Amino acid sequence: MATEGGLEPAVGVLDVKAVSMALVLGDRDTPVIWRGPLKIKALKQMLMDVTWGELDYLIIDLPPGTSDEPLSIAQEIPDADGAVVVTTPQDVSLLDVRKSIAFARAVNLPVLGIIENMSGMICPHCGKEVEVFKKGGGEAAAKELGLPFLGRIPLDPRIVEGGDAGKPFVLEHPDSPAANAFAHVVSEIEKQLRAPRPARAAQNHR
Amino acid sequence: MATEGGLEPAVGVLDVKAVSMALVLGDRDTPVIWRGPLKIKALKQMLMDVTWGELDYLIIDLPPGTSDEPLSIAQEIPDADGAVVVTTPQDVSLLDVRKSIAFARAVNLPVLGIIENMSGMICPHCGKEVEVFKKGGGEAAAKELGLPFLGRIPLDPRIVEGGDAGKPFVLEHPDSPAANAFAHVVSEIEKQLRAPRPARAAQNHR
Repeated sequence: MATEGGLEPAVGVLDVKAVSMALVLGDRDTPVIWRGPLKIKALKQMLMDVTWGELDYLIIDLPPGTSDEPLSIAQEIPDADGAVVVTTPQDVSLLDVRKSIAFARAVNLPVLGIIENMSGMICPHCGKEVEVFKKGGGEAAAKELGLPFLGRIPLDPRIVEGGDAGKPFVLEHPDSPAANAFAHVVSEIEKQLRAPRPARAAQNHR
Repeated sequence: MATEGGLEPAVGVLDVKAVSMALVLGDRDTPVIWRGPLKIKALKQMLMDVTWGELDYLIIDLPPGTSDEPLSIAQEIPDADGAVVVTTPQDVSLLDVRKSIAFARAVNLPVLGIIENMSGMICPHCGKEVEVFKKGGGEAAAKELGLPFLGRIPLDPRIVEGGDAGKPFVLEHPDSPAANAFAHVVSEIEKQLRAPRPARAAQNHR
């Protein structure tokens, strides 16, 4: 909601704050049919005018690709701690990962590592694993590109259900393989964030 | 490949021709870090300068969203037959579908209908159905928005394998539920294309 003091973020469970264009526009059905320059202006406003208060982390979820949005973000936040690349496991994804890494290097953004998402699923009927989108492509990409592999997160239909119901999966099913995988990935990212800066800069220019 | 006569499309199985930015650049690793105007210029070149020859259908696969790319396509091809909206089944997808439909109506592009993709999966181990991303959201969206529902396509891990191996799934497994679903969707789209224009225009302005 826009107030005189700026744009107020929505506050969810565990005090996670969030903003999105839908929040700015106040209408969930209207598409934002804006060309680059207008979009970039809105992005800047969302970065500058939100009354975040004190934050532990500011996470920006970007669409796939290497277009206006990540370019503007990289330019507007020159001291960002780094980028995390999330990919599905199949071989063809490697092509997009390579492009994202090359993009991050071109704009001098350190790459904290690669996450393999939708990596296998346990069948709720028979308990056996199904490789819906194959497995291992993210780890292979990390190896090939000399980047940290931050972990794989399996598919779980309850993640989708939780999303639709507004109930965070990791709180509802804290002992599930997917929740454990989430926790592992978070600790790997924290490890990378604690790594000394020069090492990350060197890695970035490898 | 760019020749003097224009840009030559790649030719795949069943004589399907294709172009992509990777083909234009001749380098699969370089990201295209272009802002809107440059991107739009490249899009126009890809529409105008390709030596397609005679085509049955020209299909443009767009990224999700309602930004520069679909806007330019809609403006450059004012006599396009229509847009097909592809969605995953979960409830939150409905928000994006609504925006895409509003976008199409704003730029006067007829909407041929909605496809529900990744709609359930048969476990290869036990043969039972798993609703990986829930089921029915696309059909519910079509009903709510008064648009034709073109069908649901189930997940099949062999689609991913075929994509990685460059072998079209529908030719490799023509009798599978997913291949039958593809065929059904195609015939539904053809049905919409044969529908008289005025009806489609009216639907578009409902």
